[in-house]
Amino acid sequence: MKFLVVAGTTETATVDGISAAGADPTATYHTPAADLELLEYGDTVFTPSVPVSPSGCPTPAVITRSVRELAPFELLAVESGLATATATPTLTACQQPGGDIREPEPVPTAEESFERARQVGRQLPDDELFIGESIPGGTTTALGVLTALGEPFGVSSSLPENPVSLKQAVVATALDASEIRGGDLAGDPRNAIRLMGDPVLAAVLGVAVGATETGTSVTLAGGTQMIAAGALVRHFGVDHPLEIATTAFVAADETVEIQRAAESLDLDLTVTDPEFERGDHVAFERYCRGEAKEGVGMGGALAFAARAGISMQEIRAQVVETYEEVIGSDGP
Amino acid sequence: MKFLVVAGTTETATVDGISAAGADPTATYHTPAADLELLEYGDTVFTPSVPVSPSGCPTPAVITRSVRELAPFELLAVESGLATATATPTLTACQQPGGDIREPEPVPTAEESFERARQVGRQLPDDELFIGESIPGGTTTALGVLTALGEPFGVSSSLPENPVSLKQAVVATALDASEIRGGDLAGDPRNAIRLMGDPVLAAVLGVAVGATETGTSVTLAGGTQMIAAGALVRHFGVDHPLEIATTAFVAADETVEIQRAAESLDLDLTVTDPEFERGDHVAFERYCRGEAKEGVGMGGALAFAARAGISMQEIRAQVVETYEEVIGSDGP
Repeated sequence: MKFLVVAGTTETATVDGISAAGADPTATYHTPAADLELLEYGDTVFTPSVPVSPSGCPTPAVITRSVRELAPFELLAVESGLATATATPTLTACQQPGGDIREPEPVPTAEESFERARQVGRQLPDDELFIGESIPGGTTTALGVLTALGEPFGVSSSLPENPVSLKQAVVATALDASEIRGGDLAGDPRNAIRLMGDPVLAAVLGVAVGATETGTSVTLAGGTQMIAAGALVRHFGVDHPLEIATTAFVAADETVEIQRAAESLDLDLTVTDPEFERGDHVAFERYCRGEAKEGVGMGGALAFAARAGISMQEIRAQVVETYEEVIGSDGP
Repeated sequence: MKFLVVAGTTETATVDGISAAGADPTATYHTPAADLELLEYGDTVFTPSVPVSPSGCPTPAVITRSVRELAPFELLAVESGLATATATPTLTACQQPGGDIREPEPVPTAEESFERARQVGRQLPDDELFIGESIPGGTTTALGVLTALGEPFGVSSSLPENPVSLKQAVVATALDASEIRGGDLAGDPRNAIRLMGDPVLAAVLGVAVGATETGTSVTLAGGTQMIAAGALVRHFGVDHPLEIATTAFVAADETVEIQRAAESLDLDLTVTDPEFERGDHVAFERYCRGEAKEGVGMGGALAFAARAGISMQEIRAQVVETYEEVIGSDGP
C-alpha cells in the first residue's frame, strides 16, 4: 500500500470565514506544506509552526502521523499548488497555487496537473493506493466542482458551524465569473476543476484515473473533498470500483449525507470512529465539538490502522504523545 | 542507510565540448531529471529519453539503478536547480538553475540552498548517508570551486579525452568575471559556490554539514565533484570523519590523482571496480574506453553493493538487463 497526500493551496481559502485550517487566513498558506512535514518527519522543518485552528484544534495530520508511527506506511507526497516550501520530498504535479474561484479561471494548470498525475498513477508499482489531501478552503472548491458537475451533494467544514450559505454564495459568484450554470460541466471534469476547483483536485483526479487504468485499487481517503474527487473520476468515465474512507465526524455531519453521496457515485464507503470522546485530552476536545472532522487522509489512515489490528485506544495514546511533542502539553 | 542524489543544472554545461552527459548540449537539461526517474522507477516518466552520451554511453544512473534492484536502498532525491520536471518525488533545496560561471554570480541561491539542505541534513533520522550528484557540466564547476578555494586538484571528465585546457580557460574567465583570484575564497565555501560553482554543490555541502552536525556518517558518492564537495566541507570547518567512494574509472584517471586529493582533504577513500571489461556488452564498452566514469552516486552504490555481498558479476548481469529494458538491446 502507498499513501498519497496531495497538498496545495487555493486563494479561495482567504475568503473570511471559509476555513479553520490555520490560525488566520494567511497562515493557511503554510498549512499544507507543514502537514507534509508532520507526516514525513513528525515535526515541522521549514514551516513556521504546526497548523492549529483559531480555537486551538490540531491539524488532522497529527492523527495521520500518529497512525504512521503505529502502522508504518509508505508516504508519497504530491505537490499541486503549494504556496510555500516544504522539507518533505514531493512529486510535483503543478507549482502554481490555485486562484480564487470567484475569478474566471482559478486553475489554468488543471490539464497539466491532471496529465502529470495520471502518468504517475500509471507508473506506481503498488497494488493499492490511498489518496488524501491537504488544502485549506478545499470544501468550498469541492462544492464548486460538484455544482459544476451537477452533483447535488452538500460539503463538510473544518469549522464546527459549517458556513454553508457563505460557501453557496462564493460558488454562485464563481459560476457567474466563469459564465456557466450548475450542471453545465457534467462529463467534463477537467474543465470543472479549471473553472470551479483547485489544483489538488486536478492531481487527485489524475492519480486516481492513472492508477485505475493499471488495475491499482484506489481508496479516496477523506470526506466531502473526496466525494468531489469521486464524482470527478466518475464523470471522467471510470467505472472501476472505488473506495472512500472517512471519519465518523464527517459521517455525523447532517449537511453532508455522505452515505447517500457515496451510494449515488458507486463509492464503497468505510467510516472509522476514533472514539475521541473517550480520550480526555485537549487534542480531542475540538474534534468532539465538530471541528476539523477530516483531512490529510485521516479517515483512510484510521481505516488502514483498524485493518492492521491497531486499536483506537492505542491510536489515541499515540495522538496524545505526538500532540505533546509537536504542540506542547498546554496546547498552542 | 539513505542514499541521496542531488540533481540540478548549470548553464556551464552548454559550453561546447564540456560535457558528455546527454546527446547534445541542450539535451543535458533533461539529464538530471531523467536520472532521478531512472533511479526511482527504473525508466523515464516525464522526461523524453534515457540519457546517453553522443557516442551512446548510458548514464551512470543505469548502474546505480541496477545496484538498487539487487540491494534495495532508500533513495532521497534532492532538487537543486533542475531545469525540467521530474516524476520522482524530490526535496527542493532550490528551484533556480545555475548560471554560466563565466558570468559574475552564477549561483545567487547558494546561501538559501545551503541552509535548506543543512536543515534537512540535521533532520534526517538515518545513521548513515551516501550523497551522489547528477549535474551535467559539474566537473567544470567543481574545478571552479577548487580553484577559488585554492585546492590544486585536477578534475575528471565524462568524455574519454578530458578537455582540461578548455575547463581551465572557462575557470580563468569565471575568476575574471567574479573579480577574484585562485585561493581568494579559501575558508569561504558558500561564496566559492555562489561565484564559481553550481546549485548542486550548495545542497551537497548543506546536507553534509547538517548530517555531520547530528553525528550521521557521510559518504560522498562520486569522483572529482565529490572531491570538490569534500573540500567545501573542510573549508566550512568540519573535521568530522568523511568517506568518499568512487569507481575504478576515476581512480585510473591520471588527470585526477584522486588518492592524493582524498588524502590531502582527510577523506577516507574507497575505490570499487565493476570489472566492466569482463562484460561483453555495449552497456560497458564506452566505460572501458574511459567515458562517463562516474556520476549519480555510481561509485558509492558499487561500494554499498560490495558491502552487501553482491558480486560484480551479478551487478553486470543486472546492468545488461536494465540497459536492454530502458534503452533496447541494440543500443540507442
